This record gives sequence, C-alpha cells and structure tokens, in this order.
Amino acid sequence: MSKRIITISREFGSGGRAIGKQVAERLGIAYYDKELIEKIAEGTGFSKEFIQEYGEHAPGKNIFSYSFLGRTASGMSMQDYIWTEQKKIIKELADKEPCVIVGRCADYILRRREDCLHVFVHAAMDKKVERIVSLYGETVDKPEKKLRDIDKKRSVNYQYYTDREWGQSQNYHLCLDSGVFGIEKCVDLIVDLAGK
Amino acid sequence: MSKRIITISREFGSGGRAIGKQVAERLGIAYYDKELIEKIAEGTGFSKEFIQEYGEHAPGKNIFSYSFLGRTASGMSMQDYIWTEQKKIIKELADKEPCVIVGRCADYILRRREDCLHVFVHAAMDKKVERIVSLYGETVDKPEKKLRDIDKKRSVNYQYYTDREWGQSQNYHLCLDSGVFGIEKCVDLIVDLAGK
Repeated sequence: MSKRIITISREFGSGGRAIGKQVAERLGIAYYDKELIEKIAEGTGFSKEFIQEYGEHAPGKNIFSYSFLGRTASGMSMQDYIWTEQKKIIKELADKEPCVIVGRCADYILRRREDCLHVFVHAAMDKKVERIVSLYGETVDKPEKKLRDIDKKRSVNYQYYTDREWGQSQNYHLCLDSGVFGIEKCVDLIVDLAGK
Repeated sequence: MSKRIITISREFGSGGRAIGKQVAERLGIAYYDKELIEKIAEGTGFSKEFIQEYGEHAPGKNIFSYSFLGRTASGMSMQDYIWTEQKKIIKELADKEPCVIVGRCADYILRRREDCLHVFVHAAMDKKVERIVSLYGETVDKPEKKLRDIDKKRSVNYQYYTDREWGQSQNYHLCLDSGVFGIEKCVDLIVDLAGK
C-alpha cells in the first residue's frame, strides 16, 4: 500500500498543521495549507484574507453573514462559489503531484481516489489550550471559547458541503489524539502508514 | 507512556475482536470479550445468551422489546440493571490487571483513567461483507443489512448510556480503518502505541 496524497483534517490547536508540514518534509512531497488558500484566492479573485476567513466557514449557522456575502452574477452564493473553486483546485493538485493537504474538506473531495490516506487529528481541550497559549502567547482571550468557536465553524462547514459528520472516524483512515501521542509520534505513524 | 488497559470498540465485521485478541497475546495480557459476558451473566443471574443479545443493545429504539424485558424488583429496567453490573465489572477488571476489553462501552466507563488506550476499529462496507462471508460462509443472508443492523444497535446503546456518539473520533485515542491497513498492521500499531 502506498498513498500519494495525505489529507489532514484537524481540530484547532491539535497541532494538525505542524504534523502535516513535518509529514510532507519527511516524505519529500508538497505541502498545501496557506499555499492552497493562495490558489483559491487566485482562482476566485477574492483576497487571501477573505478565503482564510470564509473558506472553512459554512453559511449554515449564520444567515446574516451569509446574506451579507451576497451572490455572484450567476446567482451562486459567494460561499458556494468558493467551494466550487476549492473542489476544482484540490482535485487538480491531487492529479498533479504527491502532497499533503490540510483542511478544506479535502478528505471528502478526494474520497473516491484510492491513493489517499485520510487523517483526522484531535486532542483534549486542556492540551489544545496549552498549545495555542504556547504558540500565540498568554494574550489569547478565552482560549477555550476560541477553540470551540473555530471548530464549530469547521464542523458546520464540513457538514453543510459534505453531508457527513466532521470528526466521525469512519470518514478517515486514521484518527489520532495528538495530546496523548505527541506531534512527533503522530508524524512517525502517518509517514509509516503512507507506505514509504 | 505506557497503557495498562486497551479498550477496543469496533464495527461488526471490521475484525476488531481478532485485533483485540492478537494485541492481548502479543502483550501477554488478559483478553475480555466472551469472558466479560460470562462475568456479567454471573453477576446479574441472566444467561450468557441473554447478556450477549441485550448487553450492547439499548432500549432507545425498540420500546416493545424494552417493555418486554420488564423490570427488577427495585424498579430498575432490566437493561439498566445489566448496564450497572457491566460498569462495575469493567471497573473491577481494570483495577485488577492489564487487559484488552472489547466492546461494552468500556472506553466510556474507563474514560477517567489515565492508563487506558481507547481504540475504535472500522472498515468500508465491502471489506466487512468480505470478512463476515469468509468467516461465516456464503449462507449469511443479506450481509449488508445484518452489518448495518448490529452496528445500529451498538450505536444506539452507546448513545443511550454515554450521551456520546459511537465512532466519533474524539472519544478514542486511535481510530483505524482495518480494511485499508489490514488486521496485522492494526495489531502492530496498537501494540506499539500501548508502549510496550
């Protein structure tokens, strides 16, 4: 078994991005996270900041921001337009080269490919708080609330566009508690399971 | 990190039991599956068959079988009585010795212990059908329906007694797709992560 593409979905603060980056380095393959945002921004004409803010946040729970975002000339909502572009770009990347893709429902978008390893990374709340405070400093206001809010948005976005539950183990080949195993061990496991 | 207790929750047909058994053998620790049913049967006075049939099946979805099961002299429903006994026995086993425990919401019952590794094993439907047909023969009538029915019952039971979602990755430290990795690799991973 050898997997060309590794998708990493992650709870905010779980270290999923760091894990993805290290996996890509160890395997010597491309890593798409911010680079993906840039590509979607280019493809849609929106700013990177706009894509960063709205690309993983569904309209489902916030009708006002949804309405506010408006619609394209073709009548498609802005978020649906971003979703369509995101899907296209992720599929193109997967066709182009072996890579690690973080977030953006890539596990769902690439679910029919056989050459993917789909991973979900999570951790207990205290471990995530510890991590974001150590990364962003003590200035993070109400870290637990911030963590919950961001994951809630990711979860709603995922459910809205995929009709599946975010973090439901059956959607992934491997789910890991990075708080228990540590970042390094998670990297080792993914590299091993990717079949290199 | 070293984990004394390994709980394995599993979709029917995923090979979770076989994985649990092999993990226990490799680590040289006790294995509780049928043995657990026997203990619960002894503790409650019910037959093994009765515990096997009802211990992982909640009243939630089937009011008729629930009523039919009746109540104990103390007014507790039979299924709540089995649950109470099951909880007590699982906690006692975990106190007594290092072991692998398969099913029966052990991950939830032992959630506050630090010395546990909680694992969930699942697989795609075609892989599970292949497995149960190879184990039980071609005579299995409508294998897909059988698989769905059993897991539906396990899921409802889990939700009823734990208020959590069965198979939701955050409830476990490690979730594995045994159809993709194979039984042997899953055993290797769990043995490795248990820290022996």
